[in-house]
Amino acid sequence: MKLHGYFRSSASYRVRIALNLKGLPAEHLPHHLRKGEQCTPAFLAINPQGLVPALESDTGAVLTQSLAIIEWLDETHPEPPLLPDDPLQRAKVRAFAQALACDTHPVQNLKVLARLRELGLPEDKVTAWAGWANREGLAACEKLIAHEPGPFCFGDAPTLADLCLVPQLGNARRFGVDVSAFPRLLQAETAAKAMKAFADAAPDRQPDAE
Amino acid sequence: MKLHGYFRSSASYRVRIALNLKGLPAEHLPHHLRKGEQCTPAFLAINPQGLVPALESDTGAVLTQSLAIIEWLDETHPEPPLLPDDPLQRAKVRAFAQALACDTHPVQNLKVLARLRELGLPEDKVTAWAGWANREGLAACEKLIAHEPGPFCFGDAPTLADLCLVPQLGNARRFGVDVSAFPRLLQAETAAKAMKAFADAAPDRQPDAE
Repeated sequence: MKLHGYFRSSASYRVRIALNLKGLPAEHLPHHLRKGEQCTPAFLAINPQGLVPALESDTGAVLTQSLAIIEWLDETHPEPPLLPDDPLQRAKVRAFAQALACDTHPVQNLKVLARLRELGLPEDKVTAWAGWANREGLAACEKLIAHEPGPFCFGDAPTLADLCLVPQLGNARRFGVDVSAFPRLLQAETAAKAMKAFADAAPDRQPDAE
Repeated sequence: MKLHGYFRSSASYRVRIALNLKGLPAEHLPHHLRKGEQCTPAFLAINPQGLVPALESDTGAVLTQSLAIIEWLDETHPEPPLLPDDPLQRAKVRAFAQALACDTHPVQNLKVLARLRELGLPEDKVTAWAGWANREGLAACEKLIAHEPGPFCFGDAPTLADLCLVPQLGNARRFGVDVSAFPRLLQAETAAKAMKAFADAAPDRQPDAE
């Protein structure tokens, strides 16, 4: 498989963790988002949305959108599972993941922040915007798992929720958010980061890291 | 079941369509988002994220996030299915849904537009922002299904993709987007809107419609 990504893209980071947890090798093809490399004709032919990650399967099929890619990996390579068996718990894990992947990350991604700058917003207000989006999303997530057993978001093994949480906490820190307000999330992050699959997927461990 | 929603919320609209397609009755409990009713202590006790939709199951469990709710409905009430059987097709349907539910809708929702106004953006630029987000997302979606058979997004029956598309096209028109640029999406919308399950879920057919 080939993973089109970018070291700092949190959506790519989620997929890197999933591949590592599943023990699936993939060729990593970096696209420098700040240089606009995701908008070249060659990449748009792969993913017309011009976004990373995009995963090329062994049969040449192209998959896009990190959560869809991860669910596909989970369905085609079930071990270890990234979603619980019980439908209600699956829904809770997915809701946590979507609170980050839908309501948080897209509001603070590169494209949206660039748009804010185009509208004339000064840099401190752009950073405040990104901090706000992260703070709101993480505060909701802290409550969503307040009564779930740890150490991971949902029990004693990582799920799709942890795959979304760890990259988002990285973003939050980058935008100056005081993450100590989220002790339950930090507990899950500590458990996750102790695993090689998470550690190897970290942005600073990627070949395109700056 | 009880569905906490709002007539104009596109995420609630998605879940209303799913319930109708599955033939599942639900009590509809409206929360007026523009009046901030989603932030009352009573509602925050149900969904700490302060967002609609939230679905209370017959056993009293609370589910949040529209896509997680819909996947749960599909897993617990499989007929008619809202996702294909084939893993790769499932991934394509989910990616289309997420291109709207992650990359488009959250960037133009009420909360984000309110924040833009707080930053001093005049109303015409707020509308332009929402139009931009819709145009980008729909243009990507038009390409994602360019080679998929119709009339629906993915073949001859509605899927999760159509459940996300129909509400988003409504938003796009509300923000002045010329949707005639997306003929394949309009083909899917026409097929969907001809179904009673979609028609009955429309915002103007809800008891809280203004």
